[in-house]
Amino acid sequence: MIITIGREFGSGGRELGKRLAEALGIAYFDKEIVAEVSKNTSLAYDYVQNIIEKRPIVYYPISIGHSFEDYNNYITKEYYSVHSEQDKVIKEIAAKSNCVIVGRCADYILRDLHPYRIFVYSDMESKIKRCKEKGEIDASLTEKKMIRAIKQIDRQRGEYYEFYTGARWGDKENYDLMINTSNASIKDIALGLAEVIKHANK
Amino acid sequence: MIITIGREFGSGGRELGKRLAEALGIAYFDKEIVAEVSKNTSLAYDYVQNIIEKRPIVYYPISIGHSFEDYNNYITKEYYSVHSEQDKVIKEIAAKSNCVIVGRCADYILRDLHPYRIFVYSDMESKIKRCKEKGEIDASLTEKKMIRAIKQIDRQRGEYYEFYTGARWGDKENYDLMINTSNASIKDIALGLAEVIKHANK
Repeated sequence: MIITIGREFGSGGRELGKRLAEALGIAYFDKEIVAEVSKNTSLAYDYVQNIIEKRPIVYYPISIGHSFEDYNNYITKEYYSVHSEQDKVIKEIAAKSNCVIVGRCADYILRDLHPYRIFVYSDMESKIKRCKEKGEIDASLTEKKMIRAIKQIDRQRGEYYEFYTGARWGDKENYDLMINTSNASIKDIALGLAEVIKHANK
Repeated sequence: MIITIGREFGSGGRELGKRLAEALGIAYFDKEIVAEVSKNTSLAYDYVQNIIEKRPIVYYPISIGHSFEDYNNYITKEYYSVHSEQDKVIKEIAAKSNCVIVGRCADYILRDLHPYRIFVYSDMESKIKRCKEKGEIDASLTEKKMIRAIKQIDRQRGEYYEFYTGARWGDKENYDLMINTSNASIKDIALGLAEVIKHANK
């Protein structure tokens, strides 16, 4: 049983993943993947974290010059090495045991294993509330700036997913179940969702 | 507890609605609504059925003439009288008891009651399989024609929803939970979904 969770920032996807893993008695992976990739590539945790879930940024020179080309080649190479390492780590994890994996296009990477693919979303009001409660966003920001920050993270996740999978992030066709966590207690719904997944014949 | 179900044709939304109502011990409404509207408007069941879940079709005359205008006015008036009667019937049903209502923009009509809004969808292969099993489509049609027929019904439902609510049919923002029934046993998942709904604080 492999469960993958795509999630909008601030929608509580990580909490849902943890609670599902608990309810189903299986492993949960999120930042552990970053740590493993960091170890295997000898790149700093924060650097790997920063690259993961973003599409590659290629800098186009104003005038074509060797230095720009070399720089781009270097960046692109490093980007791909991090991502191919991440692929490897995710596949190893899934091969070892039943688990819940949050983000990282795991639904696509593990498609041959037919994971149960969940997408978690919510309205902006709930996102802000949740981010404030969990301290996931700088509380001194104005609401307008918080909205901009949340939207930017989701835009990056969407671009990354699209770049990586060729499919659209959050499009229902790519998921088995999509859950709106606006005004919902994630603790309360995780148990029911676990029952849905148990019976999904995946 | 009011549950509304939007559903793609052939996705098993009606079966899911019935099973949810059973699991939650509440009433289920679908074609009963057509019968009630038919009774109240003195229009034939099939005629009402045909109008419901379609947006109005207005015929534009090539040259402006009284006869066309009168015809359009007549059609439009009847369309709106069926729909305002349907609104009334749906609101009466929801006021009387906890229930599951399938289709008919009930999510929008009952928005003040904050229903739990489900959308049911599946891939085309599952739709065809389900339609054949349930005899919901002319089995003598070629697969190509079946796909065309299924897509046309969904297009009509989408246009109707959009015309009626101003929102997009099947857009995740308009639902609390979206479930992909491709390769899934609806009987098996209904029990888990009932648990999710029970705990959704709606």
